[in-house]
Amino acid sequence: MSDKIAVTAVPIHSVIARRWSPRAFDAVRAVEREQLLALLEAARWAPSCFGDQPWRFVVCDRFDDAEAWQGFQDCLADMNHLWAKNAPVLILATAVPNFTHNDEPNRWHQYDVGAASENLCLQAAALGLVAHQMGGFDVDRARATFGIPPEVDVLAAIAVGHPGALDELAEDFRDAEQQARFRAPLGERFFRGNWGNPLLTSC
Amino acid sequence: MSDKIAVTAVPIHSVIARRWSPRAFDAVRAVEREQLLALLEAARWAPSCFGDQPWRFVVCDRFDDAEAWQGFQDCLADMNHLWAKNAPVLILATAVPNFTHNDEPNRWHQYDVGAASENLCLQAAALGLVAHQMGGFDVDRARATFGIPPEVDVLAAIAVGHPGALDELAEDFRDAEQQARFRAPLGERFFRGNWGNPLLTSC
Repeated sequence: MSDKIAVTAVPIHSVIARRWSPRAFDAVRAVEREQLLALLEAARWAPSCFGDQPWRFVVCDRFDDAEAWQGFQDCLADMNHLWAKNAPVLILATAVPNFTHNDEPNRWHQYDVGAASENLCLQAAALGLVAHQMGGFDVDRARATFGIPPEVDVLAAIAVGHPGALDELAEDFRDAEQQARFRAPLGERFFRGNWGNPLLTSC
Repeated sequence: MSDKIAVTAVPIHSVIARRWSPRAFDAVRAVEREQLLALLEAARWAPSCFGDQPWRFVVCDRFDDAEAWQGFQDCLADMNHLWAKNAPVLILATAVPNFTHNDEPNRWHQYDVGAASENLCLQAAALGLVAHQMGGFDVDRARATFGIPPEVDVLAAIAVGHPGALDELAEDFRDAEQQARFRAPLGERFFRGNWGNPLLTSC
């Protein structure tokens, strides 16, 4: 796996700097049970509004339940399936829209699930695993395949596994796998005291 | 600050385990510029759909721009202001709803901002700082105060600072500050192969 550490104005924690979204997975090596549990525990301890924990994750491990895993593979968009077919674990991230304590709408339910998924991906990076989130999949098919209730938001598919060799990755993706990572300059997204007023990185 | 490490079935990364949402802030100690930049860089390197980076953060530092900071304080719900008044930095997390590249709706915009905010909070934990997200604030007032465009979703206020002493925290919050952290059992939120089928933690 290419080592693509974030380029930052000041040092940040190495796990955050090292996390990225590779497409090269080892197709034959399973994620150990303890590793998988660590990913889920990391997600479980994310913060959420009123501690509601609106996330629900459906985990499909090829080495534990090949049928469920294949059902998930069949939901992926072609361009994702080309590389994610090698990922031994696929995880569906979903969000319950109403609070548990009063059944009123929780306007942070997607935001909070995003945090939980990020914890999961960071824990993967910490363990030397690869995690790559996808939006490109058939939501209706995933809903039917996994019995997701109609009111629940189906948000992301997360491929997890051990890093794979570049030459096992479909040729279309090899360049992207090696390109430098990119982010907008900090001042374009982070403002000082008012919308649009760039926060500058000079110390 | 109380040390409230997450109780997990298997070990997880210490920064994820140590992050929680305290209310006791040191009212007089500034967040150093380099620390603040590290929080923002951590957020900046979060993943996002199509690399769109839909997050926009407005940063108000009492020691840099007291007027903006006070304007933010005036937006907070009373129950939050009671403790967040001691936080030297307040950050507004917002989400742009449409993709930059084609102006079509980005259904992951809130999810992705949740990930960026979580990176910010984890980086705070890594630096020994305190970060606490709030949903309880006047969104319309915040929108007016900081000039947030009408189409942008205003999601969360994040209080950041150095940990404070328990006896400086308003009395109402001291018990909660010391209580054990709680999460639902893993099997209630994490499923194996199908909705509602609990994933068990026994290895």
